[in-house]
Amino acid sequence: MGRTLLLRLAYEGGRFSGWQSQPGRRTVQGVLAEAITAVSGEQILPKGASRTDAGVHAVDQLVGFTSTKDHAPQVWLKALNANLPEDVVVLSAVEAPEDFDPVSAAVTKRYRYRIHDAASRPVLARPFVWRWKTPLDTAAMQAAAEHLIGEHDFSSFENPSSPRQSKIRRIDAIDIGRRQGGDEVPGAEVWIEVEGNGFLYNMVRIIVGTLVMVGCGKRSPEWTGEVVAACHRPAAGPTAPPQGLMLLRINVAPEAIAVCHGSSA
Amino acid sequence: MGRTLLLRLAYEGGRFSGWQSQPGRRTVQGVLAEAITAVSGEQILPKGASRTDAGVHAVDQLVGFTSTKDHAPQVWLKALNANLPEDVVVLSAVEAPEDFDPVSAAVTKRYRYRIHDAASRPVLARPFVWRWKTPLDTAAMQAAAEHLIGEHDFSSFENPSSPRQSKIRRIDAIDIGRRQGGDEVPGAEVWIEVEGNGFLYNMVRIIVGTLVMVGCGKRSPEWTGEVVAACHRPAAGPTAPPQGLMLLRINVAPEAIAVCHGSSA
Repeated sequence: MGRTLLLRLAYEGGRFSGWQSQPGRRTVQGVLAEAITAVSGEQILPKGASRTDAGVHAVDQLVGFTSTKDHAPQVWLKALNANLPEDVVVLSAVEAPEDFDPVSAAVTKRYRYRIHDAASRPVLARPFVWRWKTPLDTAAMQAAAEHLIGEHDFSSFENPSSPRQSKIRRIDAIDIGRRQGGDEVPGAEVWIEVEGNGFLYNMVRIIVGTLVMVGCGKRSPEWTGEVVAACHRPAAGPTAPPQGLMLLRINVAPEAIAVCHGSSA
Repeated sequence: MGRTLLLRLAYEGGRFSGWQSQPGRRTVQGVLAEAITAVSGEQILPKGASRTDAGVHAVDQLVGFTSTKDHAPQVWLKALNANLPEDVVVLSAVEAPEDFDPVSAAVTKRYRYRIHDAASRPVLARPFVWRWKTPLDTAAMQAAAEHLIGEHDFSSFENPSSPRQSKIRRIDAIDIGRRQGGDEVPGAEVWIEVEGNGFLYNMVRIIVGTLVMVGCGKRSPEWTGEVVAACHRPAAGPTAPPQGLMLLRINVAPEAIAVCHGSSA
């Protein structure tokens, strides 16, 4: 028997050294593996669709693992949550086909980056935003972002330490706006949402750092087209800090999960 | 010379024993007094318009104090922020009339209470919400809230340890809805905003605990009318926990600050 499970996870990234298991470090993959061991006694390293960096948050990480046990998804959901620390939670669990692979199942991913651009420093939002001390021009940033839409070689937007070979990715949307509602300084939070079929190492954070160079007036919106064409990391802006980034949604190909045995979250 | 200052403060309540200064406790009033001493060498206890409880957050606490120094409001703003810890910030500073009193200047206050009512526990929002494990009926809660609008004796909604004499307060609005946007479980957060001319000790939290008794189906919306009429704390629901509560806005009478010397935030 046994089952393959598909989980959706949320976590606050602040006290994690990222998703990926590393010796001697507290990682999301690591604490989830420990919770699986506590539930079933099995030593399993669950696979995640996105290798989020240290300090990056997630509200929809897609995870898969195969157990030799026959626990129903709802049993896994409750038992894993009972064994996970307060900064990570399993939001849902469903059964997946035996060959389910979260990396190939994830057809698009959407990230949100939050920037606090008031004169005063953030207090309530401080674990979740990048502080920028002057107001950003979001219209200029949106114009700059249009040069990134579509399929491109994104070498300029990759941390050079990455071993990935193909630098071609497709960005479907970059939506920039101000968050409405009662924050500590109303209107003083910029949201940048980026959706695409895959992302190079640090790519979203370098996109944000580049768009901020436009938003603060140091560069023109057209400059981002030159950055793409350069295919060279130093051409782009700085890497925005991790705490402003959140993995917002992973869209899955329906056929990747269609063979489930009628279970749902 | 000397000046009277009006400050707007934001703070995260989690590590504070509330607003009011107490020996041996870390309070907002206390750390602000220490910052004032660091700036001007004066021993001044600033006055706040709302005595928020331990664990309660604020994005618009109104504070007044009078200094013998002649520092401009913008000097105070920068210098205080340089001397305040990361969980409290001065958002603005203006000069106020000599007799400015934040308590009497505050004509209405608005609070927001956040409830996370998903099956899964909150992760990113956990310092700012009350977790309720089943979905709440916000329409029933809104109907229940209508019985609280207007001027009433709110004895049923006051912690009995309070020494305040008049229990008559006026509630102008209670707005209940679900927060939109990309939270960890979209739609699974109820916002209750309460605005009125003044609040008894724990009044907003007891209102929330009472409305939740309706929202979860234990009580009918009409029951809250009976609770008001009872004028007896045990008639109402439980006191909701502090971390879900935030002081959202204090509206000030224009004449209370009109004599300012042209300075603004």
